[in-house]
Amino acid sequence: MNIVVQKYGGTSVASVDKIKAVADKIIKKSSEGYSVVVIVSAMGKTTDELLSLAKEVTDSPEPREMDMLLTTGEQITISLLSMALISKGYSAISFTGHQLNIKTTSLHQKARIKDINTSRVIDALEDNKIVVVAGFQGVNDNYEYTTLGRGGSDTSAVALAAKLGAKCEIYTDVEGIYTMDPRKLKMARKIDKISYEEMMEMASLGAGVMHYRAVELANKYKIPLYVASTFSDERGTMIEFEGEDSLEETIITGMASSLDDIQVTVLNLPSSTGNLYRLFGQLADKEVNVDMISHMITEAGKMYVSFTIPKEDIAIAEEIIGNWKKEYSDIKWEINKSIAKISVVGLGMRTHSGVAAKVFKAMDDNNIEIKMVTTSEIKISWVVDSHFEEKVITLVGKAFGLVSIE
Amino acid sequence: MNIVVQKYGGTSVASVDKIKAVADKIIKKSSEGYSVVVIVSAMGKTTDELLSLAKEVTDSPEPREMDMLLTTGEQITISLLSMALISKGYSAISFTGHQLNIKTTSLHQKARIKDINTSRVIDALEDNKIVVVAGFQGVNDNYEYTTLGRGGSDTSAVALAAKLGAKCEIYTDVEGIYTMDPRKLKMARKIDKISYEEMMEMASLGAGVMHYRAVELANKYKIPLYVASTFSDERGTMIEFEGEDSLEETIITGMASSLDDIQVTVLNLPSSTGNLYRLFGQLADKEVNVDMISHMITEAGKMYVSFTIPKEDIAIAEEIIGNWKKEYSDIKWEINKSIAKISVVGLGMRTHSGVAAKVFKAMDDNNIEIKMVTTSEIKISWVVDSHFEEKVITLVGKAFGLVSIE
Repeated sequence: MNIVVQKYGGTSVASVDKIKAVADKIIKKSSEGYSVVVIVSAMGKTTDELLSLAKEVTDSPEPREMDMLLTTGEQITISLLSMALISKGYSAISFTGHQLNIKTTSLHQKARIKDINTSRVIDALEDNKIVVVAGFQGVNDNYEYTTLGRGGSDTSAVALAAKLGAKCEIYTDVEGIYTMDPRKLKMARKIDKISYEEMMEMASLGAGVMHYRAVELANKYKIPLYVASTFSDERGTMIEFEGEDSLEETIITGMASSLDDIQVTVLNLPSSTGNLYRLFGQLADKEVNVDMISHMITEAGKMYVSFTIPKEDIAIAEEIIGNWKKEYSDIKWEINKSIAKISVVGLGMRTHSGVAAKVFKAMDDNNIEIKMVTTSEIKISWVVDSHFEEKVITLVGKAFGLVSIE
Repeated sequence: MNIVVQKYGGTSVASVDKIKAVADKIIKKSSEGYSVVVIVSAMGKTTDELLSLAKEVTDSPEPREMDMLLTTGEQITISLLSMALISKGYSAISFTGHQLNIKTTSLHQKARIKDINTSRVIDALEDNKIVVVAGFQGVNDNYEYTTLGRGGSDTSAVALAAKLGAKCEIYTDVEGIYTMDPRKLKMARKIDKISYEEMMEMASLGAGVMHYRAVELANKYKIPLYVASTFSDERGTMIEFEGEDSLEETIITGMASSLDDIQVTVLNLPSSTGNLYRLFGQLADKEVNVDMISHMITEAGKMYVSFTIPKEDIAIAEEIIGNWKKEYSDIKWEINKSIAKISVVGLGMRTHSGVAAKVFKAMDDNNIEIKMVTTSEIKISWVVDSHFEEKVITLVGKAFGLVSIE
């Protein structure tokens, strides 16, 4: 069997008409001789509607019951899509996370996939059925319903592709991966081909289209990922191994910016690696995704620690640091909520030095203060005040040739 | 443990505010020392909304996928109700049909419960949790989602009560069982106590409040059933064994009328018991619920068969009789869609003769043609033209004292 796993996101299945159009796209693939497995998200605004129902009930819905509620969203989509396929004369069958025994960790709303039992999927494919699977959801060891959190449906798709030895196609509302989010940089270019590594960096920067977890999983199992538009036949972006066939190596492949983080700064922490470990361990225990970290020891033997975390985790950070303050009363801390994190990514950085210098010079020439910097082998990220975001994007986009040639 | 199973129907949980009110009602019961298991239906119009989504996709949705779709309705309610209970400081946990392994037969949309695994329910009750269960749904042996059809949630509640050895309370939007549907007979009286047998007859006549299957199951396992209003504290109706303590035995306990049936008449069928068996066997195989049957053999050795079935099954009946016509070309048949079926029910009929005569006289006095009659030990049903429905109800209601004393 030549299996392909296709994933359609919430905007792709936002209405019955769109679901019917998706059915046609699936049928086209199927008629090309592929055995098709489809992963879908909840329809458009369904998740928001369910969230607001929960909010009407209580300000802090119990996480287990929240997952019980949210998992209905994809279940609605899989049934409607299967009906659409069947009504068009094709054989199709839908499965929930529970039915496929998509085993996850226990943490509600942020669960991670441990394993998938593909026997029902394979049986159905051998029976010439199109298989439609609810993304974003699974069950823990006790058969409690769990959801996978952000990027969950992409992760479901890649995990299923990995288990089935299939390739994976992600259909979405944009035509592929761009050098920069086109909503932020109008002249951004579509990228034909990008390596897993670059895409992971881009994704971890919140470059919209693909979520980090899904790309990481694709990289781990070497699943070719193709990202394209649900609504057009334009060629999308292929995410795969860094090939040797790249004719010209660009230094910077893409850029991303995000307003979704906050910067937390803690001063006067007694200096010790133990304290550093404890602080970030506590954040990790609560699944708070710490991104940039800057750390300095003062002459007085105190630590200065600054880090960025998602805005949504602010309450957790405040609670954790509040507890530290009970232990060390001279700790001072502040949270900066108006920051923009700008990043440039490219395999070319490995061989081309001076990228950081070029960035710093551009900031300096324009009197933009850099509040924090981190670098990796193929990425440079820096934090500026949020009102500089647009200016920085334009400056850097032009400086590194990330815009389309008019 | 003193377990009570409470069931709240769709109108009782139609909005978040109503769900919160239901939570208060449950908490009251719990604080009286009961271990409470709650069965809920989908919120008010949810099922209709899901049905219309399916209709948008296709005119004839595949039954398995339809059940996949519909089961989300109760799942939404159980999560919201559990959240409400938890937010009010009580420990609660919700379960879907799949999670409790509510095993049913395979026929989608009309499945029947075979067994329920109550171990998770008992564990949760022992853990002092209020248990909230999705009604109307289960899984077949292959873990396909099934729905129980009309009266499904009541049946879920009674089945769970039977397995737990609990009593069962059905909360709904009326204050109990009435001698006649008050929407049809304004002066109808509420009944304090009614026997299983009478209630089964009333329910099988479509007397709204309780569905036949649920009462039948309650009777089988001798589960005391209490029917009352969600929205008031008025005393409801107790359904239980025919007691010996009834001070005065009423002849007729209640009356029902229905416009939901059609009358199918088949003429010129070759007379044989085999043919009768085959015809009704074919209807039974399709789960068509034949109610009244009238049958006569003509002098020419042909059969005349007339029967009533639910309006919704008209297409099935037409197909089956169409096939008969292929075999016996001189068969004639007609379907009368404008009939009203009127019934009176009462244990008192056993000892009081002349009920039928009284009915026939009332019809005759008013020039109302009786198109069909069937009688059982405690029931008389007859069919009249649908436009006589209201007139017959008033006549018979007064004749048998089914109206409240002003």
